[in-house]
Amino acid sequence: MRAALINTGTELLLGDVQDAHLAFIAREIFPLGLRIEERRTVPDTEAIRQTLAELFRRCEILFVTGGLGPTTDDITREMVAESLGLELRQDPELLNSLRRRLRIRGIKWTAGIARQSDVPAGARVFPNENGSAPGFYLEANINPRIPSPHVFVLPGPPRELQPMFQKYAIPVLRSIVGSSALLERRLYRIAGVGESLVEEAIGEKVLAIPGIELGYCARPGEVELRIIGKAEEIEPADAIITSTLGLSIFSTADETLEEVIVQLLRKHNQTLSTAESCTGGLIANRITNVPGASEIFVAGYVCYTNRAKTDMLDVDPKLIEAHGAVSDSVARALAERARACAGSDYALATTGIAGPTGGSPKKPVGTVYVGLASAEAKTVVQKFFFPTDRETFKQLVAQAALEILRRRLIEGQSSKSQAPISSESSNTNLQ
Amino acid sequence: MRAALINTGTELLLGDVQDAHLAFIAREIFPLGLRIEERRTVPDTEAIRQTLAELFRRCEILFVTGGLGPTTDDITREMVAESLGLELRQDPELLNSLRRRLRIRGIKWTAGIARQSDVPAGARVFPNENGSAPGFYLEANINPRIPSPHVFVLPGPPRELQPMFQKYAIPVLRSIVGSSALLERRLYRIAGVGESLVEEAIGEKVLAIPGIELGYCARPGEVELRIIGKAEEIEPADAIITSTLGLSIFSTADETLEEVIVQLLRKHNQTLSTAESCTGGLIANRITNVPGASEIFVAGYVCYTNRAKTDMLDVDPKLIEAHGAVSDSVARALAERARACAGSDYALATTGIAGPTGGSPKKPVGTVYVGLASAEAKTVVQKFFFPTDRETFKQLVAQAALEILRRRLIEGQSSKSQAPISSESSNTNLQ
Repeated sequence: MRAALINTGTELLLGDVQDAHLAFIAREIFPLGLRIEERRTVPDTEAIRQTLAELFRRCEILFVTGGLGPTTDDITREMVAESLGLELRQDPELLNSLRRRLRIRGIKWTAGIARQSDVPAGARVFPNENGSAPGFYLEANINPRIPSPHVFVLPGPPRELQPMFQKYAIPVLRSIVGSSALLERRLYRIAGVGESLVEEAIGEKVLAIPGIELGYCARPGEVELRIIGKAEEIEPADAIITSTLGLSIFSTADETLEEVIVQLLRKHNQTLSTAESCTGGLIANRITNVPGASEIFVAGYVCYTNRAKTDMLDVDPKLIEAHGAVSDSVARALAERARACAGSDYALATTGIAGPTGGSPKKPVGTVYVGLASAEAKTVVQKFFFPTDRETFKQLVAQAALEILRRRLIEGQSSKSQAPISSESSNTNLQ
Repeated sequence: MRAALINTGTELLLGDVQDAHLAFIAREIFPLGLRIEERRTVPDTEAIRQTLAELFRRCEILFVTGGLGPTTDDITREMVAESLGLELRQDPELLNSLRRRLRIRGIKWTAGIARQSDVPAGARVFPNENGSAPGFYLEANINPRIPSPHVFVLPGPPRELQPMFQKYAIPVLRSIVGSSALLERRLYRIAGVGESLVEEAIGEKVLAIPGIELGYCARPGEVELRIIGKAEEIEPADAIITSTLGLSIFSTADETLEEVIVQLLRKHNQTLSTAESCTGGLIANRITNVPGASEIFVAGYVCYTNRAKTDMLDVDPKLIEAHGAVSDSVARALAERARACAGSDYALATTGIAGPTGGSPKKPVGTVYVGLASAEAKTVVQKFFFPTDRETFKQLVAQAALEILRRRLIEGQSSKSQAPISSESSNTNLQ
């Protein structure tokens, strides 16, 4: 079946907002044997009408995103209804839940807001659990007089569209495509190994399996590996990947590194604290993004200045003077002091030079030390070098720190030392 | 003049690669009064031919990206030439520079590589200074028998396309558009007021100005307002917006709230500390994302548990017992203790229920108190209610806290109190 996507939004065509929907929807529908064969981005104007008319004739499944909000430039709902010759009817249930939503939030009711409860006659409503504008689905040829594909109309904000798509659109799509050419897809999230090294390790062997499709996606300090194929192709590929990459795979369930760590700590009733200099709270923020983090996260010290290192954690000023704030000894002291002050089982510490300024010939921008203190083993400190922009630097350091902790947690209390990990691919020990 | 963009590339439609060209080209051509009115993404197939034919009829300027490389799936060059009825001719100069380039890099010569020196008869070549495949420009109606727009064919890799576009395409575009209808664009980033309320406040008045274009983009705790028009239209619109929204506008230079705050604090040589419970380090993380933050950010206390509130900041356990950790009094205490411990001029504190668990009838998930302590005025505490997913909750709270601080900083030392703000705005006082 031919699928197409229309992204509406003047802001997209002005370059103010980067579209995220094509990549997301393409990956979601691929396992159903569906591919987007054409994507069009059009402004919030009459152009929507013309594009709908053209694509109605050209595909069996059509996704339309954006333009469902309360403001005057949100006209997608109206254009879709008109193009299909369907009347817009106010859905009383939607209206009530909208009113509820706004009352709860103390948002003033405006005329525009009510429009979000209008839906084309015969549409199946997709509730929006993360925003106010619902999405909807219109079956193929819903108006016998106007030949049309299956049409899915979805809100623009990714955080609204994505959960809605997975929860409501995917089941409808399944019933449309049936269980014919179903493909399986597996994801492997890998930390501490560079993309090129992952490919070198498993690329050829996996691609030697006929029919298998292999994809890589590199993020700061992380590689996402994707295989797609029929069950009988997936299994041998999975065997190669898991046996080769071993412990470097931190999730096969698309979990984040912080989610995995919170699970591991909760399982062992253990706790964590952090002493962050160069990451400035990013590690604590990532950990506390995970529901249930409060059970395992005790305290986070963001000791950005030297004085804070001394005031908050009692790090000896002489130590900082002697070795500099960005040093093995200070990373060690931060981790051990944080663990002591917070009374946690583990403590992670970071100290480094994020830049753009503050570097020196001996310690250039990108230099960073990560420390892990724990009860069962002596404190480990690892040095990394991430010469990049400030935000990427912070992400790489946080990722490296969390991975050091994860390795410790899965290698268990027994091990007194651990293989060094690296977010660059200098590391050949993939186990 | 109507401009359109075709992105070729099967990988784009599989979601393996994020397109960067639309945003880049849109911003580059905007100052010339040009806008992309339609963008199509098509696979490396016959679809390119059909799309070219359709857009030839629809625009005066057409950009085509990707598919110029040496591999078999690179067919854009051939499709463009065919569509215009132009012969492909090998350019001896290009062929030589290609050979030179490969020799220098010790890359083996293949038949495919030579194709990159083929150009349609009459094309103006754009040298590729960062890769091997050149781009080219074909003037409108280059083949009198086939009506066609100005066509710009550009390589896929952004690092090749972008410098080529700026150095070679822009001058050609300038000569095409002349210095006629140049448009201006202004952006306003607004915090503390909801999207609907912003529209209610300025929408009608601004749209009453003939020719002006108005756009909204909502983000957690923030609205981005965009106006486009000729200078004589922009000025009155700008006057309406700035006079109506006043202090709610935190940037007209596309800065983030944290960038604005770091600037303000640096300007006054003032410092900040944070005591974050429910935001878990997000505020510290955002502040420390800004280069130069080390000059103004002293310390961040992520006191997630009750014990941490007492251990780190000496908050009286009886206070927590009496009012609960999520309360006006504890928010106040956290802010004041953080300011005292860190010795900073200002301190922001957050305490709330991020959920999904931990709510109660009296304090449901989404309840949060934000405190601001300072030298010059008594501590202010504001209550908010953000019933949403955990990460959005944290973003909304961080945004509200930063906005409370920004208002204080711009209202200056003098003011002893301030108008309450709200990230979803029950607030009608837009000043």
